Amino acid sequence: MSLSRLNNPHLDTMSSDFLYHLNINVACSQNATDIEQQFGDIRVICTGGTQKRMKELAIYLRPILGIADNSEPVDLCESGQRYAVYKVGPVLCVSHGVGSSTFSVVLHELLKLVRYAKCEDVVFLRIGTCGGVGVEPGTVIVTEKAYNGCLENVHEFPILGRRVRRPAFFAQDVVEGILGVGNQPKDSFEIIKANTMATDCFYEGQGRIDGAVCEYSEDDKMKFLQKAHDLGIRNIEMEATMFSSLTRKADVKAGCICVALLNRLNGDQVTITMEQKHEFEQRPFIIVGRYITHLLK
Amino acid sequence: MSLSRLNNPHLDTMSSDFLYHLNINVACSQNATDIEQQFGDIRVICTGGTQKRMKELAIYLRPILGIADNSEPVDLCESGQRYAVYKVGPVLCVSHGVGSSTFSVVLHELLKLVRYAKCEDVVFLRIGTCGGVGVEPGTVIVTEKAYNGCLENVHEFPILGRRVRRPAFFAQDVVEGILGVGNQPKDSFEIIKANTMATDCFYEGQGRIDGAVCEYSEDDKMKFLQKAHDLGIRNIEMEATMFSSLTRKADVKAGCICVALLNRLNGDQVTITMEQKHEFEQRPFIIVGRYITHLLK
Repeated sequence: MSLSRLNNPHLDTMSSDFLYHLNINVACSQNATDIEQQFGDIRVICTGGTQKRMKELAIYLRPILGIADNSEPVDLCESGQRYAVYKVGPVLCVSHGVGSSTFSVVLHELLKLVRYAKCEDVVFLRIGTCGGVGVEPGTVIVTEKAYNGCLENVHEFPILGRRVRRPAFFAQDVVEGILGVGNQPKDSFEIIKANTMATDCFYEGQGRIDGAVCEYSEDDKMKFLQKAHDLGIRNIEMEATMFSSLTRKADVKAGCICVALLNRLNGDQVTITMEQKHEFEQRPFIIVGRYITHLLK
Repeated sequence: MSLSRLNNPHLDTMSSDFLYHLNINVACSQNATDIEQQFGDIRVICTGGTQKRMKELAIYLRPILGIADNSEPVDLCESGQRYAVYKVGPVLCVSHGVGSSTFSVVLHELLKLVRYAKCEDVVFLRIGTCGGVGVEPGTVIVTEKAYNGCLENVHEFPILGRRVRRPAFFAQDVVEGILGVGNQPKDSFEIIKANTMATDCFYEGQGRIDGAVCEYSEDDKMKFLQKAHDLGIRNIEMEATMFSSLTRKADVKAGCICVALLNRLNGDQVTITMEQKHEFEQRPFIIVGRYITHLLK
């Protein structure tokens, strides 16, 4: 068992910490804190884009975790007005919005929460939707290496004015663990491991030609997507590089499970029906449910 | 009067467009569309981080726009589950989440919406909170030039795998227009024009030492903030570079009005009370209300 130690010596000198976007105040100096009592049993933190999906996941996980509760899940961070946080036994389900900028804010604060609560061996998971690259809509992709929009296998961002590049890949045992329990013959869908490209822009950054601005051709776009495909990239979303690199830097394990809503080699627009979309969105739930059962055994 | 033409020739060839994250379907081929009837009168689009604040802004603007309505504002894009959109006469109030990644998605779709609805001379405004650099908490800052986390006056992001750098500044007439009506002797707060730094990371990206990860010293941080201050940067948020460059590229006017919740030269944590925060958040409302009145005269 190991506690999350993180990678910031300054935290040891703070007498209190205000997790601003979660609106949680932590009195760091006390030994047995409220935070420890409220969140100390957390073993898995599931994150995903929308509040609605995270609430649905919390409800989905209840019977799997043996929790008999039919009440409406309570958003513990509603007063913060930015991120929704639901607790289901040892699992936290947290919304992170669209893309790395919003996700990194709540991820920093969740990593600190886990440290202050003295949680042991916490695993962070992201479930999401994505564009597929050469895979059928409905395919579930578990990310191995994450590439940025320059097709580099790093997360690059400025710190104190200088570009810093950090490794961006998920722990092999988490990837194989998810694949090991996730892949069952009875399933009507495919689950694969592959590389993922994460961009900060859904339109121009992902080579779409249907954004408000587009200064390249359909042919340029297809060459770019083919280049991504050649690197083993099978899906595109907006979080995997930041997510893998920050959790790695903070020394916690993480995994990323996304379902493809379209095959970008066939077009840019999402054309599935709302019913299909809802069915597709359930697939990462199923995989996460199995993996959490396996982790908590 | 000029229509928004945008900067994407592909849009002229599409028979329909699904604004996925707003969950709005547009039949581009029809001449008098539903979209034109519903949104054609829009003159100003106000954007901001949270749904709650945008709903409050919609209510705040009603009497200013002479709209007698005490009903709960309706989120027109609730079914999209990601962004809240409220219409108050000729003004749309839209939530964009935290940071450029999430804001760029909805901004692309709003720019297309405005084009399809054949709106004339639309102005996009962002109101938000920020960290001040050498200014008192509560100061309202109207952005002139926007700098990225490398302290460069550009928005840089990858398109088709290559780093593209675009100009990042707001139209002088919008800046002066806001200052001209915004600055009134009766106000109990200061409003200034200044440069703004926008980062993709709230913690390491803005030189905070209280994130989950921090590998630099307080001294390094202060040198960085001083360097920003020397460039005329008086506030830090997470959207201004993308917002100014994308609206400029799409040939629509834009302005960015933020209130500082703290002075980063004095610390990293937000320490004002919830009451103070709420009062500070009203200040951009006041300025936007005056500017909209001026625009629609």
